[in-house]
Amino acid sequence: MTKDVEVAEQGGEYSAKDYHDPPPAPLIDPEELTQWSFYRALIAEFIATLLFLYITVLTVIGYKSQTDPAKIADQCGGVGILGIAWAFGGMIFVLVYCTAGISGGHINPAVTFGLFLARKVSLIRAVLYMVAQCLGAICGVGLVKAFQKSLYTRYGGGANELQAGYNKGTGLGAEIIGTFVLVYTVFSATDPKRNARDSHVPVLAPLPIGFAVFMVHLATIPITGTGINPARSFGAAVIYNQTKAWDDQWLFWVGPFIGAAIAAFYHQYILRAAAIKALGSFRSNA
Amino acid sequence: MTKDVEVAEQGGEYSAKDYHDPPPAPLIDPEELTQWSFYRALIAEFIATLLFLYITVLTVIGYKSQTDPAKIADQCGGVGILGIAWAFGGMIFVLVYCTAGISGGHINPAVTFGLFLARKVSLIRAVLYMVAQCLGAICGVGLVKAFQKSLYTRYGGGANELQAGYNKGTGLGAEIIGTFVLVYTVFSATDPKRNARDSHVPVLAPLPIGFAVFMVHLATIPITGTGINPARSFGAAVIYNQTKAWDDQWLFWVGPFIGAAIAAFYHQYILRAAAIKALGSFRSNA
Amino acid sequence: MTKDVEVAEQGGEYSAKDYHDPPPAPLIDPEELTQWSFYRALIAEFIATLLFLYITVLTVIGYKSQTDPAKIADQCGGVGILGIAWAFGGMIFVLVYCTAGISGGHINPAVTFGLFLARKVSLIRAVLYMVAQCLGAICGVGLVKAFQKSLYTRYGGGANELQAGYNKGTGLGAEIIGTFVLVYTVFSATDPKRNARDSHVPVLAPLPIGFAVFMVHLATIPITGTGINPARSFGAAVIYNQTKAWDDQWLFWVGPFIGAAIAAFYHQYILRAAAIKALGSFRSNA
Amino acid sequence: MTKDVEVAEQGGEYSAKDYHDPPPAPLIDPEELTQWSFYRALIAEFIATLLFLYITVLTVIGYKSQTDPAKIADQCGGVGILGIAWAFGGMIFVLVYCTAGISGGHINPAVTFGLFLARKVSLIRAVLYMVAQCLGAICGVGLVKAFQKSLYTRYGGGANELQAGYNKGTGLGAEIIGTFVLVYTVFSATDPKRNARDSHVPVLAPLPIGFAVFMVHLATIPITGTGINPARSFGAAVIYNQTKAWDDQWLFWVGPFIGAAIAAFYHQYILRAAAIKALGSFRSNA
Repeated sequence: MTKDVEVAEQGGEYSAKDYHDPPPAPLIDPEELTQWSFYRALIAEFIATLLFLYITVLTVIGYKSQTDPAKIADQCGGVGILGIAWAFGGMIFVLVYCTAGISGGHINPAVTFGLFLARKVSLIRAVLYMVAQCLGAICGVGLVKAFQKSLYTRYGGGANELQAGYNKGTGLGAEIIGTFVLVYTVFSATDPKRNARDSHVPVLAPLPIGFAVFMVHLATIPITGTGINPARSFGAAVIYNQTKAWDDQWLFWVGPFIGAAIAAFYHQYILRAAAIKALGSFRSNA
Repeated sequence: MTKDVEVAEQGGEYSAKDYHDPPPAPLIDPEELTQWSFYRALIAEFIATLLFLYITVLTVIGYKSQTDPAKIADQCGGVGILGIAWAFGGMIFVLVYCTAGISGGHINPAVTFGLFLARKVSLIRAVLYMVAQCLGAICGVGLVKAFQKSLYTRYGGGANELQAGYNKGTGLGAEIIGTFVLVYTVFSATDPKRNARDSHVPVLAPLPIGFAVFMVHLATIPITGTGINPARSFGAAVIYNQTKAWDDQWLFWVGPFIGAAIAAFYHQYILRAAAIKALGSFRSNA
Repeated sequence: MTKDVEVAEQGGEYSAKDYHDPPPAPLIDPEELTQWSFYRALIAEFIATLLFLYITVLTVIGYKSQTDPAKIADQCGGVGILGIAWAFGGMIFVLVYCTAGISGGHINPAVTFGLFLARKVSLIRAVLYMVAQCLGAICGVGLVKAFQKSLYTRYGGGANELQAGYNKGTGLGAEIIGTFVLVYTVFSATDPKRNARDSHVPVLAPLPIGFAVFMVHLATIPITGTGINPARSFGAAVIYNQTKAWDDQWLFWVGPFIGAAIAAFYHQYILRAAAIKALGSFRSNA
Repeated sequence: MTKDVEVAEQGGEYSAKDYHDPPPAPLIDPEELTQWSFYRALIAEFIATLLFLYITVLTVIGYKSQTDPAKIADQCGGVGILGIAWAFGGMIFVLVYCTAGISGGHINPAVTFGLFLARKVSLIRAVLYMVAQCLGAICGVGLVKAFQKSLYTRYGGGANELQAGYNKGTGLGAEIIGTFVLVYTVFSATDPKRNARDSHVPVLAPLPIGFAVFMVHLATIPITGTGINPARSFGAAVIYNQTKAWDDQWLFWVGPFIGAAIAAFYHQYILRAAAIKALGSFRSNA
């Protein structure tokens, strides 16, 4: 075991013997629907996405309220964009940690889509996860609005919108690359080859996944408010329900799904070399 | 062992063989009272809650002092709400890490209440933990007041109060959901099923628990100052001793206890499916 | 093994069989002086304390320079007290991680003193570590002064001084409790009983230790600038060399040493129950 | 196994039996060039460096844009230098985590240079890694410029330049020590002796490595903008392409390479005692 990990920082070659990929998930798995664990997973995704949106949108509204120059206000009292980025990244860390063993801890349709493309979840599971995530997001933002209606509407409802001065191509690019960073981290953290090498990786996985979300928010809040999670963007748009949020909504679905697809391709066909293997590899140890 | 963890991100079904729930804790366990480890646990809870309140209230007072516009003051010099949220979350991380092996690392009557409802601690232990926590909190805030009396009173004593513009229902709701996030994380981190699957989880548990506290503070400091810990609210109210803090005090007991109860219910009856099992499950592998 | 850790959050009783305390370190161990590993440890402590002071004092000076209202300056551009607290806590995390296997990663005479009281290091090792730490601190602050002489002197040299408005008793109390938090965390993280229960604790130990330092800085920078490390205070005083820094210097030795002694007592006689055991315990499983 | 780690905080002596250094990497290893894993590693370094520069430079530009006093602007709205330091450190954490098993996770020519000096990678691998890293950095900054051309140029392009008031010697010194901190942490984290003692270290290594980067940025952003990564400095200079950035460019190659060399020397000849061993050690257990 120690020999395996020694090589970790040296980019070495692993013997392929000590792990095997799980078989691809079937597109439709009727047996899945008969298990309580499947419905439990849907509930867990719903609750996790609800809590995610509740905490993060409350942080956004609270920040904007405190730093509003039209009110008296200590302009520096709020948590700042840094605090908002922490709220998004930190909640993903906590919630992936809590739900990883129940549902896999997706909490994001783009993650579900990427794992579906890699055949790690069935089609039926992917679709129902996305529905649960979107419903959870709507309820989470709804709670925020119920708690502080006037502030909520005045401060933009936490909705994702393309900021002034950026065109749609830039916004789409930012969403694609941002989601790529997140889904690439998810794939790296859950790679069965890696798990074979080191059994602790899944336990530690939530932290880098949360940090990936934190980092992308630091970089792209000024551009799009940072979506990289269609459920988050959709839930905020449904409750806020203003034209601008709906006009840009497609960006926050198309961008993340493209980013997730590229990450799935990069992981499966480049890093895992599935394509090369299929063609007959020129690897010496194949 | 590696096979068990492979499934962690895929929401799979576990065989139930490799762990067993510990039996429920008795309501009153006379033998417990004869053990030094029980009194040691009370001391550890007292000291931990004292240190928790000392560090966090000192941070709050220091921040308000530095950014007071009535004084000269570098308005941006303070640690900000972000720094205050870090103080609360970070101390919980450190103290849960230090006391987990001694007392379980509750440091919060709501956590103790949730674990009591799930029958993980006895009634007598739960009650005495809460007493130790409240005494510790009073002493911790008392130290802050002793160190800087004039600043302490001028800047609100770190007491939890409903902020202007929010009604009691909102404050109660914020406390319920915030405590739910915390206690849900505690249950996830200490689930014996999870421990069977992966023996490192308890070691890592303090970090997500600390982050859960950090996140809730980012979101709800503008609403209630964030309680989610009745000992913290009670200790600050006793030392500050102003009408407003006492008038709202019930909020910071009722809210957290309801939130903890919902989290205990959610974990025991939904995620662990105790109800389903009791009724005769439709799970294929039951 | 998994059974041992299951109990971690429930404050249970451990069987005492699966670990044994190492014997107390001798006061003077002549053999130690013949080993290269001993001198290597001194070098590692010297370099680590040098890097610690270099990075942290540079951060302090840089912050004060950027937010100086007398200069143009973006008043909010600096890293803030939050950033300074991160610098101290984060460097301790990194350096304890790097040197734990070489020297034990003390980087602080108060930590060395606490571990000496608990008989975990010999007297000769303790004294030479402290000398190495103080020399390293002087060199680290010296580097900062060499790099930016005018800024260094203008902005207070990163020296610890009692801030205006606080009396010596408050400063002493703040140093005692702050160091208690740190040394208590160090003892918790390196407890051999805990290691027996869970072999990963030492690997994870640097993170809570770093966080403990971070937390104490958030709370007490407004009072004393936060010492809790006599080498840090001494090194800054030697290079800054102003009356005020020297007048308060005793505070930053007496306070941390008292705090470390209390932490050693608390851990050895309360949490580890050494006293009780010696007297004939009333523990049922003794 | 537990006995090995018990000693971790006590600076003890290890028996040398339970690990062995891997043999030094050959200068040129022709077989390496025939393996797909080698090209995959180059791709992984390219993509990781691209993402690193994309996220971090976007954060820098976004910050400067939001706090520009010439625009309306909420002066405190930006992420601050603290947020920028988090972006650099956090991305290194995430990317080292993701690429450690593929390429070793260097993402920095100075790290590659240090590992080459310690004979952990071959010459051909070192050179091609550096080329991949520089190309990745250029593409990453290029993406930022493509996304927001006017902002990019107005706010300095994220290029490393010696700040006003510092001479070249100071800048060089800051780069040398900063890179020493980073590469020393990398060596500590990947030491095979440490891995033998504790098989989890590589899994945890990305966190202290990321923190080392975070810390150095807190301290030296006011001096040089913080390079400590020649690919980062080179990529920004190529895309920004202004005289000042090119004039100082040598600093950001010479400094990091010297710092990495000192770290390699310190780790191999002092901490690992290779020199002493070669000469015939006076260690008692040699």
